Amino acid sequence: MRIGAIEAGGTKFVCGIGNEQGIIEDRISFPTGQPDRTLEQVIAYFEYKEVDNIGIGTFGPIDIDPSSPSYGYVTTTPKPGWANYPFLAKLKQAFDVPFGWDTDVNAAALGEAVWGAAKGLDSCVYYTIGTGIGVGVFVEGKLVHGLVHPEGGHILTRHHPEDRFAGTCPYHGDCLEGMASGPAIEKRWNLKGSDIPADHLAWAMQAFYMGQAVAAAILMLSPKKIILGGGVMHQKQLFPLIRAEVRNNLNGYVSAKAVLDSIDDYIVPPSLGDNAGLCGALALGLQAMEGRIS
Amino acid sequence: MRIGAIEAGGTKFVCGIGNEQGIIEDRISFPTGQPDRTLEQVIAYFEYKEVDNIGIGTFGPIDIDPSSPSYGYVTTTPKPGWANYPFLAKLKQAFDVPFGWDTDVNAAALGEAVWGAAKGLDSCVYYTIGTGIGVGVFVEGKLVHGLVHPEGGHILTRHHPEDRFAGTCPYHGDCLEGMASGPAIEKRWNLKGSDIPADHLAWAMQAFYMGQAVAAAILMLSPKKIILGGGVMHQKQLFPLIRAEVRNNLNGYVSAKAVLDSIDDYIVPPSLGDNAGLCGALALGLQAMEGRIS
Repeated sequence: MRIGAIEAGGTKFVCGIGNEQGIIEDRISFPTGQPDRTLEQVIAYFEYKEVDNIGIGTFGPIDIDPSSPSYGYVTTTPKPGWANYPFLAKLKQAFDVPFGWDTDVNAAALGEAVWGAAKGLDSCVYYTIGTGIGVGVFVEGKLVHGLVHPEGGHILTRHHPEDRFAGTCPYHGDCLEGMASGPAIEKRWNLKGSDIPADHLAWAMQAFYMGQAVAAAILMLSPKKIILGGGVMHQKQLFPLIRAEVRNNLNGYVSAKAVLDSIDDYIVPPSLGDNAGLCGALALGLQAMEGRIS
Repeated sequence: MRIGAIEAGGTKFVCGIGNEQGIIEDRISFPTGQPDRTLEQVIAYFEYKEVDNIGIGTFGPIDIDPSSPSYGYVTTTPKPGWANYPFLAKLKQAFDVPFGWDTDVNAAALGEAVWGAAKGLDSCVYYTIGTGIGVGVFVEGKLVHGLVHPEGGHILTRHHPEDRFAGTCPYHGDCLEGMASGPAIEKRWNLKGSDIPADHLAWAMQAFYMGQAVAAAILMLSPKKIILGGGVMHQKQLFPLIRAEVRNNLNGYVSAKAVLDSIDDYIVPPSLGDNAGLCGALALGLQAMEGRIS
């Protein structure tokens, strides 16, 4: 099978061809521009490539409710030209194949469940902590859509006792994203994350916020794996700090072996590395073929 | 179809017979005693009643992972005799019919989705706020189990600025249940909930905590309906207060009509009333018959 994959990011698009083993055979990348022009480049890439299906994991917010008139649209983004843009319909006009369509983070969660860190499991939660904080949710063998799609980057957390930072979220100020995204870290410390030493209070504070978010995910969703990706999580010293915060927050209440005895294998980095986004889109394409998403 | 339903509570058991329309045709209730004695009463009730299947919605924590050796057990409860008790196996010995087995709150969520406030929807979150705070989660047409089962009553919330109460949760102190369960309200104000006037600060404070929990549920799970039940929610003045807190917390970020324009129909009481628990168990029995839970 030849599966087309589109990783649509706010700053760049990656398109590729892969197969049902999750192997990427070809790829191309270009900056995200005006939507019509960008999709022309996408269409030019896939033309004559004879893909059997195409999966799209995209920045958002997007409409993923098949019964909605604006299904397949990017909805309220401030990104120039993309608000209320019929992303999926434009591609459907060009290619008569089954399409998978979901958020970038749901795609990443599915990719990790099919080929990555949550391989073979019927649930996982995928956090990306970078420019923003996004959450992909896969439970009982399905990606969660519901009313819109999960936006777990915006939950409220308690303030760290030594933190006087007001937060950066334009909607909520000091929600999780406002306190723990990459830009929040930089603004709080007036330092690039990559310039902050590994033993700096910044990381203990970061773990304090993420530890609350991950504990909330465990309590609300009971996932079989928690995957933490995105640029901020390149700071590997965060993993043991976050695991300790999670255990501290749960305090033995969730009596599952994964949490009590093997949390190092439970809260983990993505295992698909640089291919995570594209593999996620690939998995959406595969799922579209199997008729679970149209 | 004759469906058997068991609502297994910490203080009382309710057993009943119903049909696929959610109509309860017969019922019996007795106090929860030692497990062997209690299940003898359950078995005596269903004997000769010729039910086609039985659904059990029970207090917990319980094991609902069919692949686990302790599937069907009540696990770590402090309730005398019930810890590590093979609840489901005892009933399977007595009746050779399909069984549905889940938490009381998951049962209630399913009952509301099949016959109640979330009828026809493929997702809802059901909170019960009473002696404790429990959360049942139904998304993408399935009850969420995962690692254990959701325990969303124990998420951390921010303290109300005027609240000096330390919380009642033996595991977490000031988690949601520790701050907003019925016993927490009584202990904080040294008054029975039913004796606190409707315009008392107690209810604004309660809405402050529940508003954070409901906003977190929306952000993590994106459900199509939020149902708030349990003894504390008999205080009907809480509904508008909680809805206002939720809108305040989300601040327009979740751009769904249900939240922005019709929140009165989105955050609602259970519609099955006194039959909610038994109807939930009935729905589990029905689902067992359809082969989705065995």
